[in-house]
Amino acid sequence: MSNPIDFYFDFSSPYGYFGAVEIGKLAAKYGRQVNWHPILLGPIFKNIGTNSLVTIPVKGEYSRHDMGRTARFHNIFFKEPSNFPIGTQVAARAALWVQEQQPAKAVDFIQTIYSAYFTEDIDISVPASVLRIAGDLGIDHAALEAALGTQEIKDKLRQATEDAMQKGVFGSPFVIVDGEPFWGFDRFTQLEAFLKNGKI
Amino acid sequence: MSNPIDFYFDFSSPYGYFGAVEIGKLAAKYGRQVNWHPILLGPIFKNIGTNSLVTIPVKGEYSRHDMGRTARFHNIFFKEPSNFPIGTQVAARAALWVQEQQPAKAVDFIQTIYSAYFTEDIDISVPASVLRIAGDLGIDHAALEAALGTQEIKDKLRQATEDAMQKGVFGSPFVIVDGEPFWGFDRFTQLEAFLKNGKI
Repeated sequence: MSNPIDFYFDFSSPYGYFGAVEIGKLAAKYGRQVNWHPILLGPIFKNIGTNSLVTIPVKGEYSRHDMGRTARFHNIFFKEPSNFPIGTQVAARAALWVQEQQPAKAVDFIQTIYSAYFTEDIDISVPASVLRIAGDLGIDHAALEAALGTQEIKDKLRQATEDAMQKGVFGSPFVIVDGEPFWGFDRFTQLEAFLKNGKI
Repeated sequence: MSNPIDFYFDFSSPYGYFGAVEIGKLAAKYGRQVNWHPILLGPIFKNIGTNSLVTIPVKGEYSRHDMGRTARFHNIFFKEPSNFPIGTQVAARAALWVQEQQPAKAVDFIQTIYSAYFTEDIDISVPASVLRIAGDLGIDHAALEAALGTQEIKDKLRQATEDAMQKGVFGSPFVIVDGEPFWGFDRFTQLEAFLKNGKI
């Protein structure tokens, strides 16, 4: 049995969204499973002393242009959210809870949260939006709402982000498979070559 | 007549080197000329408040790994230089001078400087190395040596870097064609689609 693909992402990352759209197909094509890891880029950026691309002058304008172009190039439906970037603690904590409590719905939940934000302009930093999406998918949103207020789920996300950092993750999307790291959606062509040939 | 492709690069940039290997073929395929723009990333990074990838913890280690892998993936000969990154003022000034004084040899000079650094581990921050390469290509290296000491050539490179910044250039390689900007060697697939279809 092949090792799973570890896929790290922040819900505020458009390239993470593109990756989330494609990673499942890619994994299936090469007989791999995907471990989905919601993390927060904020503490990671702080730790290595860098910033979100979009907050850097000039680079930010370019990257907003690049997002839309990259989506068109890959035929991925995309609409830049009005509120961007956003805090994704609630969405990430919710994803961790769904992974633990209703694992069969976790991938669907993650992808629906992503597409709500990046195709429907739904502000997923608002807890009510996240809970409504959960409810629509038949997830126990009352239990989820209660869990979101606990220290336990906050600690879990903090730990998940720290674990990712320990593994060398510093961006979104970030993929590790068979010990090989790939940063960015634009490395998915190399990732595919690696999955196909076992090396590059 | 189609507009030329503006290709901006810093001689210390491995992805700029990969771009320099490929841009000529790509341009020829779609009936375009290339305007080669040697620039310095240092002042640009300072201006926008960012840093060279390789100086950032974790990201630096990853990017060193990524360089070699990207070279292999694209079948580009590459050897990480012992001294990296380096100051590229001398090489960039020399390239500007050759472009003006012996334009027929300029592309060859630029590509030879790049491959000396990234395939033969020749330290092109050393003026003698740059002058020897010029001499090997039949460029008047005595006149070049004299020119490298002048304020005029220093001003010219400063101006070239400022002009690039004005056009929104903030990395290497950076391509602008028909007003469309492409940052990074990993955008060459999108660049090719743009050259082919006139849009993305």
